[in-house]
Formats: sequence, structure tokens, C-alpha cells
Amino acid sequence: MSTGKAIILLHCPDRQGIITDVTGFITRNGGNIVYLDQYVDTLEKRLFMRIEWELDSFSIPRERIKQAVDAAFAERYEMYSSVYFSDEKPRMAIFVSKMSHCLYDLLARYYAGEWEVDIPCIVSNHEDLREVAEQFGIPFYVWKIAPDKSNREEVERAEMELLEREHVTFIVLARYMQVISDGMIARYPHHIINIHHSFLPAFVGARPYHQAYERGVKIIGATSHYVTRELDAGPIIEQDVVRITHKDTPESLVLKGRDLEKIVLSRAVTRHIERKILTYKNRTIVFG
Amino acid sequence: MSTGKAIILLHCPDRQGIITDVTGFITRNGGNIVYLDQYVDTLEKRLFMRIEWELDSFSIPRERIKQAVDAAFAERYEMYSSVYFSDEKPRMAIFVSKMSHCLYDLLARYYAGEWEVDIPCIVSNHEDLREVAEQFGIPFYVWKIAPDKSNREEVERAEMELLEREHVTFIVLARYMQVISDGMIARYPHHIINIHHSFLPAFVGARPYHQAYERGVKIIGATSHYVTRELDAGPIIEQDVVRITHKDTPESLVLKGRDLEKIVLSRAVTRHIERKILTYKNRTIVFG
Amino acid sequence: MSTGKAIILLHCPDRQGIITDVTGFITRNGGNIVYLDQYVDTLEKRLFMRIEWELDSFSIPRERIKQAVDAAFAERYEMYSSVYFSDEKPRMAIFVSKMSHCLYDLLARYYAGEWEVDIPCIVSNHEDLREVAEQFGIPFYVWKIAPDKSNREEVERAEMELLEREHVTFIVLARYMQVISDGMIARYPHHIINIHHSFLPAFVGARPYHQAYERGVKIIGATSHYVTRELDAGPIIEQDVVRITHKDTPESLVLKGRDLEKIVLSRAVTRHIERKILTYKNRTIVFG
Amino acid sequence: MSTGKAIILLHCPDRQGIITDVTGFITRNGGNIVYLDQYVDTLEKRLFMRIEWELDSFSIPRERIKQAVDAAFAERYEMYSSVYFSDEKPRMAIFVSKMSHCLYDLLARYYAGEWEVDIPCIVSNHEDLREVAEQFGIPFYVWKIAPDKSNREEVERAEMELLEREHVTFIVLARYMQVISDGMIARYPHHIINIHHSFLPAFVGARPYHQAYERGVKIIGATSHYVTRELDAGPIIEQDVVRITHKDTPESLVLKGRDLEKIVLSRAVTRHIERKILTYKNRTIVFG
Repeated sequence: MSTGKAIILLHCPDRQGIITDVTGFITRNGGNIVYLDQYVDTLEKRLFMRIEWELDSFSIPRERIKQAVDAAFAERYEMYSSVYFSDEKPRMAIFVSKMSHCLYDLLARYYAGEWEVDIPCIVSNHEDLREVAEQFGIPFYVWKIAPDKSNREEVERAEMELLEREHVTFIVLARYMQVISDGMIARYPHHIINIHHSFLPAFVGARPYHQAYERGVKIIGATSHYVTRELDAGPIIEQDVVRITHKDTPESLVLKGRDLEKIVLSRAVTRHIERKILTYKNRTIVFG
Repeated sequence: MSTGKAIILLHCPDRQGIITDVTGFITRNGGNIVYLDQYVDTLEKRLFMRIEWELDSFSIPRERIKQAVDAAFAERYEMYSSVYFSDEKPRMAIFVSKMSHCLYDLLARYYAGEWEVDIPCIVSNHEDLREVAEQFGIPFYVWKIAPDKSNREEVERAEMELLEREHVTFIVLARYMQVISDGMIARYPHHIINIHHSFLPAFVGARPYHQAYERGVKIIGATSHYVTRELDAGPIIEQDVVRITHKDTPESLVLKGRDLEKIVLSRAVTRHIERKILTYKNRTIVFG
Repeated sequence: MSTGKAIILLHCPDRQGIITDVTGFITRNGGNIVYLDQYVDTLEKRLFMRIEWELDSFSIPRERIKQAVDAAFAERYEMYSSVYFSDEKPRMAIFVSKMSHCLYDLLARYYAGEWEVDIPCIVSNHEDLREVAEQFGIPFYVWKIAPDKSNREEVERAEMELLEREHVTFIVLARYMQVISDGMIARYPHHIINIHHSFLPAFVGARPYHQAYERGVKIIGATSHYVTRELDAGPIIEQDVVRITHKDTPESLVLKGRDLEKIVLSRAVTRHIERKILTYKNRTIVFG
Repeated sequence: MSTGKAIILLHCPDRQGIITDVTGFITRNGGNIVYLDQYVDTLEKRLFMRIEWELDSFSIPRERIKQAVDAAFAERYEMYSSVYFSDEKPRMAIFVSKMSHCLYDLLARYYAGEWEVDIPCIVSNHEDLREVAEQFGIPFYVWKIAPDKSNREEVERAEMELLEREHVTFIVLARYMQVISDGMIARYPHHIINIHHSFLPAFVGARPYHQAYERGVKIIGATSHYVTRELDAGPIIEQDVVRITHKDTPESLVLKGRDLEKIVLSRAVTRHIERKILTYKNRTIVFG
């Protein structure tokens, strides 16, 4: 027997009886379901589901739950599933460069106890935000890639070693202005969250606020997404916008955008920590 | 055997196994579930659920489904449920007074085929909008209550007879400026949708835009809700807002508010037609 | 002497004293300023201004005001200006194809007296919406371009003749699915308003809701803009957005988008009718 | 001669020629106007204006500008005006209790250089946030009012002395859960900014998120306003809202509300620091 709650995130081709089978499996083994959300993508004919149940009367020990779920459903329903436990906190690394607003927002939430998460380290390619990390007592690591990029592999190896050593489970790029290596993306598939300062797919790439100003849009946005190999093209987790006017300059857009970036990034991080996000074919299912 | 889809809306005290039982009942009888959404109110310890399934292989004839559901679950789970069929359109009466914007919006959607609904009649206490009803070829009935209210009962009786004769299943008050009788509310419990031109509970009652102007708010709103005996206090279905500035006058608020009223009312009507709303203790559960 | 109000929209390089000079000119000639809004684009070093004043004690006859303004300021300040009168209604032609929602929204506002505008004609490339035009008693003209486009010039000539004959001052494309000729754009520079069903510059061109679905965005938008020769690239007048979820299909996006399209188009039309829009270098200044 | 910019905020009964006169006064004395926004309240027949001009060629010394403005216009136009200088930073005291989210947001902006402001002190009625103040190196003062309120006057005197000593020009209540004394309100009229965690005037007073949950609203809000003697009834500076659903509990509303509170408070503080707010009859004019 165990305490806490188990969470399963799954998806599989939609067929009759899956919900009955899966909820029956949990109920029959003594689990009390406290959350169930499911969604059938009728175009893809695919079922996505999130179930959360209390473990205190559950007859399967937690270390064997994933195995039992797979034995029951993986082959039969061609089901992909992940099992999490509410008392096992995700471990989040934050990558930053020079801008402090997202970092402060993340750390203030962490410090105020808003999130069930650990933050063992902050990584940067600049010294600028060391002081912020120290304000919150979190180890701060700086690796700079040389202009000739000669030390690129060395830096990546050092970063990966840190992430392994600290058992980091996901990474948040809080306005980190450097490309993430393919190796790191492969190691953390759909577990690296970036904030892009535009309403994607508008204004991909550099200086989106200046692009927005040039185009004369009346609304600007921010987008948080999982990082994939293609720049600014990974599955979108959350977006939000704010109205602007002809009075705004590129500079005022940068300022207004900061508030968007903070809130959009934090909402994505919240959902990730809660294990409420599934990805499929470059789209996210974000349960409420 | 039958065609089309069945929809069940239900709520009951939350207990283990209900989802398994209900989905199992449908699956076992040959129904293919195409939509399931559920929500557990953890404060009330109450389960709310909406299930939709295809009837073409379902073994229970449609006229006996409600009975079969009740036999299986009503007593056992203290369950309240309603059963609908996708091919049985709700019949909507529209009540109006003098302002045309909500009426036009409703009729344009109806005419464009946005809704699976019939609109057999429009009722008013003024002649003003007869022309609009005629533009769309919908019967228009006018009953005026005399200043001394001597004919009140007579008017209500005539209205109720019309609603019965036309098999009206729900009523939409599209800026209808007259109090609905207790009798009509009792006959259509949580089936009369009103649009109030404020962000309730702010600015209850008359002239909310003027109240909003006086208070100097920076945002105005509109609220659609089911009508109950207490004025502007029924379960809220949908709300939305729009930003205003110090430049707005009560008159410009009225104009800006119109767009809100139309859209907020139409969203509520859409959800009602789709049978996606449950009410409990003066709150609505609106499935997505 | 005259009644009503005059409106001047102007822009010129920013220099000291312009506001004093222009307001002084109006005041000195007996005009009572009831509205003044101005904006200095500090990047372009350019002043944009809108002034509205009462004509009843104004000493310059209305037919000579534009001339007097030009004599006083055009050369001296390199000023471009337009003069309008509140009692001279703009005349708006509506172009439609098959979808009714924007057309109904425009006509309902017109019919309810929301706008100081005349609508002498509706033009289409399909017969579908003739009935809607007839509901509102507005002449409906259909010209179809042959598949081999052999009659293209003939159609354009006929359309232009209609617009001239009806003294049309601006055109609203209410989901008109055909390219506007360069000749018509040249005749109505920044006086043809289009509604594009995406948050431009995202999803230019055809089927933007399907593009949005494919990309997996969490918000969709609509954009009204003046038509220029480059597709979907003219000065943006107004944009708005609505939140969507993973549950939305391309079809539900189309439905949700309709409400956006109606409201975004109507806001742009409102501002145009009020003579509150200036354009400069593919951007709009929209006074509040 | 002087450098920097001067800002004048003024209001007076609307009469012909004021704009010409005031802008003429500045231009004639060598000032280059870089910002002018004005608004005529047509119901109150009152003009509100904000002008900003460069001082480097201005012939009136800065210490005599206010006097010169008054001499020219105060009596003649019954004009109320305030004069500020862009290089004289406002000095802001922050009052807090136990919740850190607004405080962190304010301090992160301050630290990142977003605002032209000084923050000489943080005042609290609890020790809880001392650590946050220390993280940012800002003096933190705690005065607790005894349960029997016997030391109330003493506390107020100490607070007022601190504010005087530090030349505080305005106060921000960042979720400060104690009533401000009439004396302090009188000393800082329309210079104390509060954040109330509801969409005022809905849910005045305590526990607004719980009130919102009980009423079943679909949107929650936050309101920043100047403090007056009547609770939660002062002039509103800024409001914003966020959509919620039936799935939200009072606890999740508290969390969602925090993000609103931060952003709504910061927007109000920004406008106050920029000297863009005028108040009149319990309403604010907030220039863009």
C-alpha cells in the first residue's frame, strides 16, 4: 500500500470500451478516481486521457503500476502511457541569458510555494543574472560558447552532466538566447519549454517586436512551446496577447511584451508540472 | 435499432465506479461513445457528466433509454439524469421588446444554419420589431400589459398557451424589458435564458451602463444567465467583457455593450442547444 | 454660416507650433473645437492629428474650408489633410460571396441606425445572398467572372460604373472571395476594407482556420485591413482574437471565427465612417 | 536654461481657445512639445490635458514654471494644474502584509530598471516578507497594531514620520491587509494605490474570490484604485479579468487571481509614475 496519488497520461487509437476498461482497472484494484479528463480527436480517431487516483487503498505497489498498465493495455489498445506520482516532484532547470523578468517571475512563484517542483540549478551563457540566482540561493552555472564555437561540444557535455547529476526532469528556457543542441533536445523530448515573444507562427526568429511594429499589428502576443529541432516550430502549449495602439514604439512593445512572456511561460510551466500536457503530431492536448 | 446520437446529462454524489458503470452500460448495449466529459466538484463531492453515443447499433430503443438509465442508476447512485437525442431539435421562443441587435444576431445564425434548433415564434410587448420578424418569416405575437396591469393574468395565459401549442422547449429573452411571471419560470425551470447588460453581480437592475459610467470602471461586461425568481441572480452561463476608457460616455457604452450582449447571449444559446449545460445550486457546469 | 461639424485629418513632419497654429486657425475663425487628438510618431518624426469643430459660428463657408486649410498650412508644413463634414454621410458598397454572417451584421447595424452611412448597393459574384439583400431592401448586383476569365474587364467596368453612379465613397469586402482589380484599388486607395479570417501576418492566404488547426495554435484571430495590391498585406485597422483548445476542429474554428470576423470588420467600418483613421507607410493611426 | 522634460497635467471648464493658449505659451517660451493628449468630458464640459515638452531651450527656469502657468491660466480658465519634471523621480513606499507575489513583481521591475522611481522603504504589519525586502536590499519596517488597537495612533505617527523622512511621494498597497488611516489618506490624496482582488464594484470587501465562487461567475477580475475614505470605492485606475470555469475552486481562483493582481497593480503604478493620471469626481482620466 502507498499514499499520494497516481496520474496516468495516455493516448491510443479510439475504440469502444477503453474508458470502461481503464477506469474499471483502477476501481477494481481499489483506486478512487479523483480526476478524469479525456478527449477524442475525431479527425485522428485517437483517444487522449488523464486519470488521477488515490493510492491509499490501491492494491498494486507504485513501482509496479506502469508495468501493470502496460500489461493490461499497451498491446491490446496500442496505448502509449506515462505514470507519475503526485509526491514525486519534477526537477526543473532554468536557462537564462541577460533578461531578468521571466526568471524573477519563476523564482517568486517557486519561493511562494505555488508549484510542486524543485529547482536545483540555473544555467546561463552570461554572468548578468548571477545576482538574481544568489538572491534566491540557487546554484548558478555559466558556460560561454566561444565566438569560434570551438568549445561547443565541451559546453554541451558539461551542461548535460549537470542535468544528469541534478536529476533534472525538464528544462525551462526563460528568454535564453542561444540555440539548444540536438543532443539535449533528444535527451529531453517535449520536456524543454521555451517562451517566444510573438504570437507564433507570426514573427518567427529574431526581433519579433520590431517585426510586429513594422507590420503595424494591433495586438502582440507571446507563445510557450516545447522545443524541437525546427526553430520556433514545436508544439504550442500556451499563448496570450495584449492590445497595442499606433502610439506604441518597438521599445514600448518590448516592455508590454515582458508581462505577456512572464505569464504565458508560467502558465505552461504550471501545466507541465501538473502533468496535464500530452503531445501528438506537433500539437498539445492541455487538460483543464 | 435507431439512428442519430443520444446524449445523457447527469449528476449524483461522487462515488467510486460510477464512470465505469455508466460507460459500461452504454458499451455493453452496443453504443459507441463519441463524447465524454465529466467533472467532480470536490467541495460538493458531486459528479457531473455528459456522454454522447451513437445509436445505430444500440440495443435499447430510444423511447426506453431514459427508463433503462433510471432503472440502472437512479436509486443506486441517487442520480438525476436527462436524455436527449441529437435529431430532436429544441424549440426556442424569442422574447423581445424594442432593441433589434440581439434578435438580428439570433435570427441570422438560425437562418445561416448555425444551430440545430427550431424557432416557431417571437413574442413581444411592443410592435417595434414586427418588421424584423417578418423579414425572416417568423410569426410575431404582441401582448401588451396594461398600465394598471389588469390584464396581466390574461397575457400570461395567452403566452403560455402559445408556448404549449408550439411545443417550445426553451425561451430566450433577447433584451426583453419586462419581468417574467413566476408561473412561466416554474414551467421552464432553468430553461429561460436572459442577457443582462453588465458584468453580474456588478450593476444589477436598471441602466447598468449608466451605473458603470458613474462608477468609472475600465471594463464593461455582459452576462447570460438562466432566469430564476430573484432578479439577475440566476445561474450564470456565460460572461464576457470589453475594455473602455475615460473617453466613453454612457451612450458609447451602450453601443459597445451591444456587441457584447449579442455574442454572450449567442454563446449561451449555443451551449443550451447542444445540451452542454448542467445546473446545480445556482451554478452552471458548462461542458466544452 | 453653416451647421454640423467639420473634421480634419492631417499629417505632416513634426515641427514646433503646428498644434498652436492649426487650433488657432480654427478658433480665430469662430470654430468651437469639440475633439482633438494628435499623435507624434517619434521614429518617423511625423505629426498626425484629428480635429472636429462646430460650424455654426465658423466664418469660412464649408466649400472653402479645405482650400483655406491648404493655403494656410499645406506648403508651410508639408501637410496632407482631408476635410469631412459630419452631415455628409459616407456611401458604402458591400461586396459579398456566399457567407451571410458579416453581411447580416453590417445590415442589422445599418438598419438599427448605428452608423451615419448610406448603403446604396450590394455586389456579389454569386446569387446566394440575394435573399438577404432583399430582406433589407437593398439593390443586389451579381457579376460572375467566367472560368476562362474572358469577361473580367467587362465585369470590372460594370462594377466601376455602378460605384460611380452610386457615388460610393468606400467599399467593404464582407467575406468576398475574389481578388479586387488593381484598377479598383487605385480608384479607392485605402478605402476598401477587407476582413481576413486570421491574426495577420500569421496564416496569409487560403483556409487560415485549417492552417491554424494544423499549427496547433491556442488562439485564433481576425484582421480587418485596407486592401492594397499585395494580398493580405495592407494597413491593419483592427484585430481581435479568441481562445481555442485542443478540442476544436477546423469546423469549430470556422464557427468561432465567424463571431470574430463580424465584430472586427464592424469595428473597422465604424472607425472609417467616423473618419478616425489615418494611414502612413502601411500602418494605421486609429484615433479613439 | 535646464535639461530634461517638463510635464503638465491640468483640467478646467472647457472653453474655446485653451489648447491654443496653453500650447502657444509653451512654444513661445521655446519649449518643444513632444507629447500632447487631451480629452473633453462633454457631460461635465471639462477639459483634461497632459503636455510634455523639452526644457533645453525653454526660457522659464524650472522652479518658476508652475508659478508662470498659474499666473497665465489659473484664474482666467479656473484651471487646476500640476507640474512635474522627468528627471525628478517619484518616491514610492510599498506597504505589504504576508503575500509576496505583488511585492516580488514590483521589486523585480524596479531592479530591472523598468521604472523611473525610487523605493526608499517597505512597510508591513507582519514580519513575513522581511526576507524578500532583504533580498533586494530595501529597508523593511514593521509596525503591528495591537489587538486592542491601543497603539494605533503611535503606529500611524511612526509611519507618517518615516514617509516624511524618506520624502515619499506616493504609496502602493501591495496586498496590504489593514485599513489606511484617514490622516494618511488626507496627506496623500489620490496618491495611495491599492489592488483589490475583484472586478469592482462586484465583491467589495473580504474574500472576494470566495464570493465569486459562490456566485458562479465565469470571469474574475482585479482592480487597482486610489484609496479614499470609503472602502474599495476610490477612483479606478485599471482593471483586468481572466476567464474561469466550473472546474475552478476558491483555491484555484486565488492562484489565478494572483497573476491578475500583479499585472493590474503594476500597470497602475506605471501610469502613476509616468504622471499620466488625472482624477475628477471619483473617475480617472488615464492618458495613453
